[in-house]
Amino acid sequence: MELFDLAPVKYTDDKMLILDQTLLPGKEVYIEMQTKEDVWDAIYRLKVRGAPAIGVAAAYGLYIAIKDLPASDYNVEIFGAVLGETAEYLASARPTAVNLSWALNRMVKAFDAAKPDTAEKAKRILFDEAEAIRREDEEACYAMGKYGLSLLKPGMGILTHCNAGTIATAKYGTCLAPVYLGQQQGYDFRVFADETRPLLQGARLTAWELQKAGVDVTLICDNMASIVMKNGWIDAVVVGCDRMAANGDGANKIGTSGVAILAKEYGIPFYMFVPTSTIDLSTPTGNDICIELRDGAEIGSMWYAHPMAPAGIKTYNPAFDVTSAEYITAVVTEKGIVRPPYKENLKKVMTR
Amino acid sequence: MELFDLAPVKYTDDKMLILDQTLLPGKEVYIEMQTKEDVWDAIYRLKVRGAPAIGVAAAYGLYIAIKDLPASDYNVEIFGAVLGETAEYLASARPTAVNLSWALNRMVKAFDAAKPDTAEKAKRILFDEAEAIRREDEEACYAMGKYGLSLLKPGMGILTHCNAGTIATAKYGTCLAPVYLGQQQGYDFRVFADETRPLLQGARLTAWELQKAGVDVTLICDNMASIVMKNGWIDAVVVGCDRMAANGDGANKIGTSGVAILAKEYGIPFYMFVPTSTIDLSTPTGNDICIELRDGAEIGSMWYAHPMAPAGIKTYNPAFDVTSAEYITAVVTEKGIVRPPYKENLKKVMTR
Repeated sequence: MELFDLAPVKYTDDKMLILDQTLLPGKEVYIEMQTKEDVWDAIYRLKVRGAPAIGVAAAYGLYIAIKDLPASDYNVEIFGAVLGETAEYLASARPTAVNLSWALNRMVKAFDAAKPDTAEKAKRILFDEAEAIRREDEEACYAMGKYGLSLLKPGMGILTHCNAGTIATAKYGTCLAPVYLGQQQGYDFRVFADETRPLLQGARLTAWELQKAGVDVTLICDNMASIVMKNGWIDAVVVGCDRMAANGDGANKIGTSGVAILAKEYGIPFYMFVPTSTIDLSTPTGNDICIELRDGAEIGSMWYAHPMAPAGIKTYNPAFDVTSAEYITAVVTEKGIVRPPYKENLKKVMTR
Repeated sequence: MELFDLAPVKYTDDKMLILDQTLLPGKEVYIEMQTKEDVWDAIYRLKVRGAPAIGVAAAYGLYIAIKDLPASDYNVEIFGAVLGETAEYLASARPTAVNLSWALNRMVKAFDAAKPDTAEKAKRILFDEAEAIRREDEEACYAMGKYGLSLLKPGMGILTHCNAGTIATAKYGTCLAPVYLGQQQGYDFRVFADETRPLLQGARLTAWELQKAGVDVTLICDNMASIVMKNGWIDAVVVGCDRMAANGDGANKIGTSGVAILAKEYGIPFYMFVPTSTIDLSTPTGNDICIELRDGAEIGSMWYAHPMAPAGIKTYNPAFDVTSAEYITAVVTEKGIVRPPYKENLKKVMTR
């Protein structure tokens, strides 16, 4: 299938489908989501991942969870209560990316605002809201692509960490959107993809996406970011974001903060691509962001043909880390490029 | 087997044995080296690795390569020529660690100085020199342990990258020597081991060594070094070295330079453990050190049950990087602790 046809979440023929990203790059398989448990599990197990894509999946997930509720004994209060409980349940799948709760809250608010008097209307409102969330994310990514491209020049070497590409969003990606846009315009970027341990989103997803799109991509281990910068091969770092606090601290895939510090040391601009749906003004600083801790087996044994660490070894496996605002050269949103001071300027962009 | 009985290179019952480190942590297997090709292959394939252990292996390897030469038609010139060719051959196995050529040169010089008049004498000289190299490395590691421990305090959190432990040396290790010495003295260090992609020496070897010795060790992915430092868990970074240039730039396992930059940013001392056999005053700076490039399959497929990167993906796989002298707080040698300015002070320690 062509890259941009591989949406991470699809709703067609009254079916919700998710591209199982744990099978990439080997297999391109869509699985049907039939219950809220299916959706929770798909988010928890990273079959769908990437902050914006998680938001889209949660929105459609909430819809499929209620779409088969009986229409005959409809009661707006009871329906609303079930909706709220289901939203809370889905939100518990992963703690760090704010888009998950953002999308669910938006769905619940749309229902609360309309107070629909029939089940049919209630379901239509929720479906339309999920569609809007998906469509707006696609538009936001396209806009971030244009803003991002204005920061880059043809022939640049670009380093990215994890995957904030088309399959992490409704379409195009956040930080990879300018790479795809540049590709269409003959920019000839040379992209370096950190493999991104432990779950290898860089190797499995970013390298796969960019290769499929014909972009010049080189896969490196995370610990090689320093040498490629020192070699003079990197002109800009672009990354996504899972939650940005009001002061500009950004939580993203584990290792992002290290890349940002290296970029600062080597004098390379570090751009974080953050749709406004990912900016959480109610979280004051990065210290207030909950960092998900995951199973240590992901480090020592999960992927390997043989266990690659001694049995019983203690591990520490945070899924994200926080990049301090001081290391972020600019924040690219769909409403424009935000520069420091972030505390002031993020607030402005949110009300634009 | 007890940890300190697991020497990476053993010579017993007229047999040279190498602990096959590619099978760790699953199996503790010694393999016999019968020819110079066996030794070259063991070094090239990292069955024996770690700069000092490579030096010891090369020294015994040179001995076993010549020990079966016929004694009857001995001629010092011809024997010397064969010795030189064999040393050159073994030196070609890996380019970065200076201990390889250092040990081989030392063997050849011992022969040249003695100009032995019989094959028996020639072989005895070479065997004794190999034994001396092994014994002196063990003593050097013990001394580095004592000097290193003087830089550390009980209860400290210590981060290390790759493996510079007992199986990387004749015994005790370079940067792990103070950890073992501290362990005997009740220092209760908490050690964090970077897994060290792509070959996982941290996960397979360091975590295994420290766990076997009863040291409190936590395995992390390389890209988690930044978060554990930010969490305040790390009081010192200790690493080994494969070649230190005259100005104090040190080549070590890929990723070391990144760890050093993070340590600087977080205000954590960064100690490089460098026996004088690893200091190469004839190499002016880190830019003059040849960095070994290895097969990209090590990144994308070698360890995995399924290929974890798309087929045909371009990779960049340097085995080492150079840590600039500016990021190194102190260099620990067996002759004492060296502080900046390194260009001056490394020269002094070499003539001590």
